[in-house]
Amino acid sequence: MDKFDLIVVGGGPGGYVAALRAAQLGKNVAVVESTHLGGICLNWGCIPTKALLRASELNHQLHNLAEFGFSAEKVSFDIEKVVARSRAVSRQLSRGVAGLLKKAKVRVFDGRAKLAGRDGKAHVVAISKDGKETGRIAAPDVILATGARARHFPGLEPDGDLVWTYREAMVPKALPKRLLVIGSGAIGVEFASFYRNMGAEVTIAEVADRIMIAEDAEISGLAQKAFEKQGIKVLTGAKVGPLDRKDGTVSTRITTASGTTDLVVDKVILAVGIVGNVEDLGLEQTKVQIDRTHIVVDSFCRTDEPGLWAIGDVAGAPWLAHKASHEGVICVEKIAGLDPEPLHPLNIPGCTYSRPQVASVGLTEEKAKATGRKLRIGRFPFLANGKALAMGEPDGLTKTIFDAETGELLGAHMIGAEVTEMIQGYVIARTSELTEAELKETVFPHPTISETMHESVLAAWGGALHF
Amino acid sequence: MDKFDLIVVGGGPGGYVAALRAAQLGKNVAVVESTHLGGICLNWGCIPTKALLRASELNHQLHNLAEFGFSAEKVSFDIEKVVARSRAVSRQLSRGVAGLLKKAKVRVFDGRAKLAGRDGKAHVVAISKDGKETGRIAAPDVILATGARARHFPGLEPDGDLVWTYREAMVPKALPKRLLVIGSGAIGVEFASFYRNMGAEVTIAEVADRIMIAEDAEISGLAQKAFEKQGIKVLTGAKVGPLDRKDGTVSTRITTASGTTDLVVDKVILAVGIVGNVEDLGLEQTKVQIDRTHIVVDSFCRTDEPGLWAIGDVAGAPWLAHKASHEGVICVEKIAGLDPEPLHPLNIPGCTYSRPQVASVGLTEEKAKATGRKLRIGRFPFLANGKALAMGEPDGLTKTIFDAETGELLGAHMIGAEVTEMIQGYVIARTSELTEAELKETVFPHPTISETMHESVLAAWGGALHF
Repeated sequence: MDKFDLIVVGGGPGGYVAALRAAQLGKNVAVVESTHLGGICLNWGCIPTKALLRASELNHQLHNLAEFGFSAEKVSFDIEKVVARSRAVSRQLSRGVAGLLKKAKVRVFDGRAKLAGRDGKAHVVAISKDGKETGRIAAPDVILATGARARHFPGLEPDGDLVWTYREAMVPKALPKRLLVIGSGAIGVEFASFYRNMGAEVTIAEVADRIMIAEDAEISGLAQKAFEKQGIKVLTGAKVGPLDRKDGTVSTRITTASGTTDLVVDKVILAVGIVGNVEDLGLEQTKVQIDRTHIVVDSFCRTDEPGLWAIGDVAGAPWLAHKASHEGVICVEKIAGLDPEPLHPLNIPGCTYSRPQVASVGLTEEKAKATGRKLRIGRFPFLANGKALAMGEPDGLTKTIFDAETGELLGAHMIGAEVTEMIQGYVIARTSELTEAELKETVFPHPTISETMHESVLAAWGGALHF
Repeated sequence: MDKFDLIVVGGGPGGYVAALRAAQLGKNVAVVESTHLGGICLNWGCIPTKALLRASELNHQLHNLAEFGFSAEKVSFDIEKVVARSRAVSRQLSRGVAGLLKKAKVRVFDGRAKLAGRDGKAHVVAISKDGKETGRIAAPDVILATGARARHFPGLEPDGDLVWTYREAMVPKALPKRLLVIGSGAIGVEFASFYRNMGAEVTIAEVADRIMIAEDAEISGLAQKAFEKQGIKVLTGAKVGPLDRKDGTVSTRITTASGTTDLVVDKVILAVGIVGNVEDLGLEQTKVQIDRTHIVVDSFCRTDEPGLWAIGDVAGAPWLAHKASHEGVICVEKIAGLDPEPLHPLNIPGCTYSRPQVASVGLTEEKAKATGRKLRIGRFPFLANGKALAMGEPDGLTKTIFDAETGELLGAHMIGAEVTEMIQGYVIARTSELTEAELKETVFPHPTISETMHESVLAAWGGALHF
């Protein structure tokens, strides 16, 4: 039985980053991965969707050439090629992860891992492939990074043909003419945006009273307006009836406060949340606590069982790759006896790559109000920003929320072009506990859309200059 | 003679922002502007060039559709429409500035301003239109924000027809087939990028031994390689001979260390620097010092003459709109008796909006070395970044330079897609004197190109994770 300093179960962004960091720190590391290195994120999530969304933005541009003085005829795309490009990017990155692990001398085991008791102080992990045990390895520390999978509800089961999860939605063989997206978190909204911009008729059904419920209500309202302007039908407070599959279409009835809508579509995408992969890991014999499909951990990713750690999606919300990889680093540094800073949930940004993009960090206005603090709130519209106008991207808003007494930046919320690349400035500010003073003093380059970040701060503190 | 609290001479980004900030502080303000509100930046610089560059990026995309699975026929543009859109954006923003000043109750005088002695303690400013004095106004404080203009050299004079400055280059009636750009600062490089991406044959001639001399040498080398890959001919250490205009073309001989190149082109763009507009302002009767066409000021924009201040291009390098507007705020706050933080030159970012974009803040590697400090330098290539690959933008680099002992971020240098929108994160870090510790701790969202900012910091301090 091979012995390691550390075993990482799962090769997604949390798992492989933990392994790489441990190798940097001189540890002898094993990763056990059953499917593909890079996990959902790299193979079926963040990365391939960005390649698809790039294509849909291009399609949008190609149908709005006149605004920029251009023209073209017979504009078209080959959905197979669009998908093939997206898969090629995923493949390249997954291979890149394999190369990084190899270079770092991390042993990668192909199979499923299950805890199989202790060998002295070490945890034993049994590896199996196609149901057969192929070997056992042991290490004093094991990090569980098994991720999560799409959640299903009774009556809303995917079938891989007419009713899709993100998996099938990412590799369409043809463009559905009519599409229903159930759920309006980042995944639902990104697919809605992709398919709409590629030309499909799209309906979003969201059970909550607004879309993108994790975002600031004002931003979510602006997103809804933007989607509706693009022709997406948005139903909120929506209960979706049974999915009736017949003759290659899906019929359903959607009920909202304002009535019922009978809908016939070619495909349905389910994006109603995820559940943690906590099954068949052998956790029953351990002290590991599970709360609603997620492993309970402390701020250094420790479970209740000594030597067992959990990071990423399986350890709970927010289900974001950068949360997983950051936890991987913190967890490994803690194991190595270093003194890492725990992850502050309010310093983890969230990004949605729809058109328009949405990005945020910290408290929403509602949550900031709920703290009882006195607030100062600043807003600056892209319409008053020169670069946004020059780019033909006038729709957007940057909103900042400060503690009126201490000047602390409590939250920042952005919607519009390129905001996912800009939000990091506010994340740096929050992580370093900066106040309005440092942000006011910062010289944002002109002409950039990032100037809205400065103006929004000025707006909160006495008045923007350009609005 | 109308009396004001403050007179601002020049309605460019420094001038109008100074006026708006003074109005916010309750001052009675006059602006004297001879040509157009918004200055060069808004009317003939930053803003209209960005609109043009947007068009040239679109043209590039339209000729690289197959990579993304798209096709189109008869792709073309109408240069008149491209220029018209650029002018419309400028017009909209210039009108916006007029509206902001009106709303702030700033009086705008149309004409040229000249200092005309004192009335008690107040400075008197004579306003003239078409050479005739139209009135006089007075204020205890006058801010000179008269900007700068293109520099000319003997033998390299513009003629408005075959040999252009930025003015003519911004409103071409037709696309020149062959173009020579003399000078490779931001202006030269942006025009070279625009015209090349629109289909022209472009040569850049730079007298220094590398292009973009203000940037880090490594970045400038990468930029040159990228431009050459696009088919731009780049000549460095280049002396341009006399411009021989004949039959609607310009012939010249360019001499470099490796020999001479005889060139015939349809247009020449001169972008060899700028000179401050210090003439006819009545400065002779004041104590104002002038150094090589620029007004000498202290860190609060004070000249040697009490009550006279200067901001923006006329007050010296860097000639950037955001430096001008920030100086406008600092200067006005100082006049108002507040306690503004002086502008630190090394915290002013620089951006070039060519393809690829370049953005930087702080010291270059060469200058950092020259301080004698021990350095830690990190690099991260876009090729190892998932979002960059998904976007089809694999060419780029993020480079960070730290003081090895204190951890201070000395400089940051970026080349590649969208870096002009990202650099602000590093500017916030520099302004707040953050170190590698805060930047390592920051959770950059995935998948974004901004993750290269994090990895570059990790690379400087023990190793990037993804390279």
